[in-house]
Amino acid sequence: MPEALSNAAPPGRRGPSEDRGVVEERILVAARASFAAEGWAGTSMRAVARAAGVDPRAVTYYFTDKATLLDACLAPPEGFFERIGVLMDVPVRRRGAALVASVLNSWETPSNTPILRSIVLTAAHMPTAMDRLRRIFQESLVAAVADSLDDEQRHVRAGLVCTQIVGLFMTRYVWRIEPIASLPAEDVVSLVGPTVQRYLSGSLAPQGPT
Amino acid sequence: MPEALSNAAPPGRRGPSEDRGVVEERILVAARASFAAEGWAGTSMRAVARAAGVDPRAVTYYFTDKATLLDACLAPPEGFFERIGVLMDVPVRRRGAALVASVLNSWETPSNTPILRSIVLTAAHMPTAMDRLRRIFQESLVAAVADSLDDEQRHVRAGLVCTQIVGLFMTRYVWRIEPIASLPAEDVVSLVGPTVQRYLSGSLAPQGPT
Repeated sequence: MPEALSNAAPPGRRGPSEDRGVVEERILVAARASFAAEGWAGTSMRAVARAAGVDPRAVTYYFTDKATLLDACLAPPEGFFERIGVLMDVPVRRRGAALVASVLNSWETPSNTPILRSIVLTAAHMPTAMDRLRRIFQESLVAAVADSLDDEQRHVRAGLVCTQIVGLFMTRYVWRIEPIASLPAEDVVSLVGPTVQRYLSGSLAPQGPT
Repeated sequence: MPEALSNAAPPGRRGPSEDRGVVEERILVAARASFAAEGWAGTSMRAVARAAGVDPRAVTYYFTDKATLLDACLAPPEGFFERIGVLMDVPVRRRGAALVASVLNSWETPSNTPILRSIVLTAAHMPTAMDRLRRIFQESLVAAVADSLDDEQRHVRAGLVCTQIVGLFMTRYVWRIEPIASLPAEDVVSLVGPTVQRYLSGSLAPQGPT
């Protein structure tokens, strides 16, 4: 491991094995910010190195090229998919609130917020990033929700869950529209949970006035 | 038309009054695409002129500077606010479905789609554009919905409506996540309408399993 590192930060220098993670992380933080704000064309390996305060060769060493760097930037935070998988152990009748709580928890974990926010912002103006985000929803959240339901309309239901979850995190964390941005998490869960629950297992037929 | 163009574009010359609209519109189409894809830093008056096929001086003539051009690009399509105002004439108990139908109608009017999409994409990586989008929601949709409700929690209700509406158009029109992207509009209205209705006038207390 220290061996790996030796080639690490500024190439040519040696350091303890923690450095590799530290340097990579600094590069990723700078690259995420750049892709989110400047897009693909406006991001260069050299500018990322400067923003990260590392030698440009370190960026190439760890991430090879800009496509690989982008790919690393778009990876969801650690444990993101596992957390969705765990929801499948929650009984369907309580899964709506559990899903909302899980999304809030993911976004409100301090180390996750900038990662998720930059993935969403990068996706907004980069087709490849948008494809990837679409897959995250279709292959993980959507598939996970859908597979556990024995329902002909399960893909529609999963898609409907998507509309509420996407709108919730856009409103609360990306656009920060009040008062949703500042509501306590438990209030959001109790207000929005029933919507997700209806999409998961409730009646989808038009309802009378409530 | 080539006639019109040559007259309208360079400032100082005169042409039939329709030309103004034609040239302005071509500039706006090119500018919206550029701000959405390249952001503020990646957009120049000169490149917009080139993409629009007009003399660079025409861009300055009609829009003065880049900030004014951006401002024009971020203006919602004609009739956007009026349409929201009309909803207030719909009885509250049917306003959920009417609001969803109105949003779908706005987005699916062919001349509106690229405008709305570019506003959302531009907002994703430009703080000023994001502020403006936030105001569109807070001052029009949110305020319009809220003002008509006699309810202590009306701002929370309006915010909840926001989460569903934003998620619906992101999923259906911006990220185009299936099957929501391809559902017939009337199905979307009947599936999502009840959610908006609950946020507008239903019980917000936690509900039992449905």
